[in-house]
Amino acid sequence: MSNRRGKQSIVFPNAPCIVGAAAVGGVKEGQGPQRQWFDFLLEDDIFGEKTWEKAEGKMVKKAIDLALRDGRTTEAQVDLLLGGDLINQLMIANYAARDLQIPFMGLYGACSTMTESLIAGSVFIDGGYAARAVTAASSHYCTAERQFRMPLEHGNQRPPSAQWTATAAGSMVLAGNTSANGDALPGGDIVVTSATIGRVVDPGITDVNEMGAAMAPAAASTLLTHFKDMGTSPADYDVILSGDLGNIGKHILMDLMKKQGCPLAASYNDCGAIMYSSEQDVHSGGSGCGCSASLFAGRVIKEMRQGRIKRALLMSTGALLSTISAGQGESIPGIAHAVVIERKGGQQ
Amino acid sequence: MSNRRGKQSIVFPNAPCIVGAAAVGGVKEGQGPQRQWFDFLLEDDIFGEKTWEKAEGKMVKKAIDLALRDGRTTEAQVDLLLGGDLINQLMIANYAARDLQIPFMGLYGACSTMTESLIAGSVFIDGGYAARAVTAASSHYCTAERQFRMPLEHGNQRPPSAQWTATAAGSMVLAGNTSANGDALPGGDIVVTSATIGRVVDPGITDVNEMGAAMAPAAASTLLTHFKDMGTSPADYDVILSGDLGNIGKHILMDLMKKQGCPLAASYNDCGAIMYSSEQDVHSGGSGCGCSASLFAGRVIKEMRQGRIKRALLMSTGALLSTISAGQGESIPGIAHAVVIERKGGQQ
Repeated sequence: MSNRRGKQSIVFPNAPCIVGAAAVGGVKEGQGPQRQWFDFLLEDDIFGEKTWEKAEGKMVKKAIDLALRDGRTTEAQVDLLLGGDLINQLMIANYAARDLQIPFMGLYGACSTMTESLIAGSVFIDGGYAARAVTAASSHYCTAERQFRMPLEHGNQRPPSAQWTATAAGSMVLAGNTSANGDALPGGDIVVTSATIGRVVDPGITDVNEMGAAMAPAAASTLLTHFKDMGTSPADYDVILSGDLGNIGKHILMDLMKKQGCPLAASYNDCGAIMYSSEQDVHSGGSGCGCSASLFAGRVIKEMRQGRIKRALLMSTGALLSTISAGQGESIPGIAHAVVIERKGGQQ
Repeated sequence: MSNRRGKQSIVFPNAPCIVGAAAVGGVKEGQGPQRQWFDFLLEDDIFGEKTWEKAEGKMVKKAIDLALRDGRTTEAQVDLLLGGDLINQLMIANYAARDLQIPFMGLYGACSTMTESLIAGSVFIDGGYAARAVTAASSHYCTAERQFRMPLEHGNQRPPSAQWTATAAGSMVLAGNTSANGDALPGGDIVVTSATIGRVVDPGITDVNEMGAAMAPAAASTLLTHFKDMGTSPADYDVILSGDLGNIGKHILMDLMKKQGCPLAASYNDCGAIMYSSEQDVHSGGSGCGCSASLFAGRVIKEMRQGRIKRALLMSTGALLSTISAGQGESIPGIAHAVVIERKGGQQ
């Protein structure tokens, strides 16, 4: 039996359910247009901790805790935690896993971590290798900026193409649909049906403030491959959301898709492009693992539950930036992984 | 259908085959007692490149290339590349994936990366989500030391508990056993039969030169859980090999297992403890993702093909050290993932 489709895609015949989800956002995120979709908003981005990294760790644990509660799942019921973040050696996820004591597999795909985790988690659930799995991804403006760009205290000027690393975390609880007759589990009518694993694509960008341009070709590659592998087109999805291409990257992706004869319509948007309002002075939009993780786990899942979205193509995007490779003259490759989430059951 | 066993373990009913494997070693590794098991040895650890990181990248690509050749598999036949390394933002694996153009999922489990990749890869293959997958992990003394400890030029004194990051890479090619009657594929009589996903265990070690002590409790946790979940004991395996506990960590693990009423016998050893000879002045032994990756993909697979090992329990161990968390007073948690590899077919 092969669950493989085409070159890079897979289907999930047992349709793993997303039984719980939660999104946590920082102060700036709570002041933006996505405010209503967060389950918890920080009053202060230090979140009562002594360092930004510990604050990010507390934030992702909060997201996991809320997702578990939402999915009526206890820590002890979870077979596997999958997740990651941007901080060196996956520090945030590692310490969250230490405190949770759930078997843990750390993943790194830069800001593509949420969909990478969803794919891996869905494979574990769909094949019966785990009964319940939790995915988690986070980012924090203050931890990411000082690691990848400049010390915050430096207060350097940001070019118009720069994006703002979202202080946000998202978590989803995946569970197998164990009913033999295909009935949805209670709260389990939102299912993962297919996925496309991305390739690393490097357009040769070397400017760390041009993340959207660095990721857009990888995003186009994954989208085009997904449509081809699955025999679908953009019109087959109510919503197509990329992770953090930002305002510039979003338009590069739209141009690339148009050139390839597969234009994206009004159903397409980018989490980075909608995370903040234009008054919030973030230039090209939001970025970071938490950008797509929080909007997928927050807004998309809630809109599906409300019946406003029936089929969504979610694609977190990652810029595989390393300060070491940048210092050695290397360009910044991109990667993008896509998953399809559908609302089943009473919504026919 | 559940392929879950006990608290943290899984079984692979379709027994994914390891059809290809290769190990690459550095100069020091080629001068040690494991020399004969490497498929390729560097004459110079810079490997013709301008930076140590580019040398490590070339090394892991060499390992993947040799493993593919060994498994009579072309790049185009591979559905998925799974792997990682120690360098910030998974730089080595990311750039290898860029050059190979195989769909890629980056994993980070510090030095536990090889068994983490084998588990994820086996799940993809066993469940029919990939037909062929490649796992890869690497480390390089010169890239790791300067990132985690001191600039090499500093020439600092190493305490007796310090371990030597192996300059080595390992890669394995996994393939599904597609024959309906259970016959082994050509070259596919070495199969992955079960696995145990580790939890993060933190014994409170804060000294970056005490990696063995930081990882041993996680290793004990994974081994004890594995035996309990699978209903086996150490006597059921011809070989039990941990990743890079080194001489000190190996003895801590043996003490911990004895105290838990599950003593390890002569079949147990640690890749870090056997990578170098005592004359090679590496103090407590080898470490790094490449340490277990190269010995598993090199020595263990070759010894299985020679019929000298029939059932091996392989457990790469990871110290989830981050220079940021260390600077913030955090201790170093450990993790360990285990897989069981068996030789099937004509060896009854």
